[in-house]
Amino acid sequence: MEIIQITGYKNSGKTTMAEKLIHALAAEGFRVASLKHHGHGGTPDGFEDTDSARHHEAGAFISGVQGEGLLQLAARPTWELEQMTAIYQQLGTDILVVEGFKKHAYKKIVLIRREEDLHLLKELTNIVAVITRPTLNAADYPFLVFSQAEMDRCIEWLLAHFSH
Amino acid sequence: MEIIQITGYKNSGKTTMAEKLIHALAAEGFRVASLKHHGHGGTPDGFEDTDSARHHEAGAFISGVQGEGLLQLAARPTWELEQMTAIYQQLGTDILVVEGFKKHAYKKIVLIRREEDLHLLKELTNIVAVITRPTLNAADYPFLVFSQAEMDRCIEWLLAHFSH
Repeated sequence: MEIIQITGYKNSGKTTMAEKLIHALAAEGFRVASLKHHGHGGTPDGFEDTDSARHHEAGAFISGVQGEGLLQLAARPTWELEQMTAIYQQLGTDILVVEGFKKHAYKKIVLIRREEDLHLLKELTNIVAVITRPTLNAADYPFLVFSQAEMDRCIEWLLAHFSH
Repeated sequence: MEIIQITGYKNSGKTTMAEKLIHALAAEGFRVASLKHHGHGGTPDGFEDTDSARHHEAGAFISGVQGEGLLQLAARPTWELEQMTAIYQQLGTDILVVEGFKKHAYKKIVLIRREEDLHLLKELTNIVAVITRPTLNAADYPFLVFSQAEMDRCIEWLLAHFSH
């Protein structure tokens, strides 16, 4: 399984990029899956299954509830990204598109919206490309530089990358 | 990984039984996890992560969102129990307590609340014990019969079973 991260601050276009990339990869016939980090801490909206909470309190280290196409898994103490990627791998994922989790070391695209965000390019590891609104001199960076208007070109490049 | 199902109709005491069993197994040092079916169809309360829905529509066969201790995985078209049990196994579960999914063939405890529910004992497979409010003649059944008041005895028997 290949893993590609789409990272950047809020409103930098991560979800749009992830959506376009998923669409392009699925159209190529890859089994694509996605994982995103729920912003601002806290649990995703509305998980209040009291029976699951009871299972947890009774001592279950994982308590799950499934209804139709959704499976909610509560882990104690919490989830590690590596546990989650292992689940995706087991499910037969070819390419996992991860939105967020920017401190992790998988290959990543960084989206830059403002000059103030440029420090990310120094701090994050394993950057393969950046999509930027501020103008950058590509020669200054050891990865590909795309402007915001070139997002589709970045996706074409990624498609070629994954097709080898 | 061992799997034990706790089955029966609504209000037959499944959650109480699951909770007591989880507690007893965890106290013995087992890594216990639980999975329950969300009753009445529909998705568990409140999953309305629109970005995940966008990932799904774009073609992701699994789209997940994680916040703190909770991971919500949406599968297209839906989840099979075997996919879910494989996840629990991979996470290092010793014993998985499954509440519901009564048509599946794992070893199961059946809870009987009313005479009208007794047909379950003929229809379900792999029953190891029944906990019943109506009085049953144990000699008529090829599995252990406990009265509602003997739930704790049933749990002791299960503990002994898993400890071998």
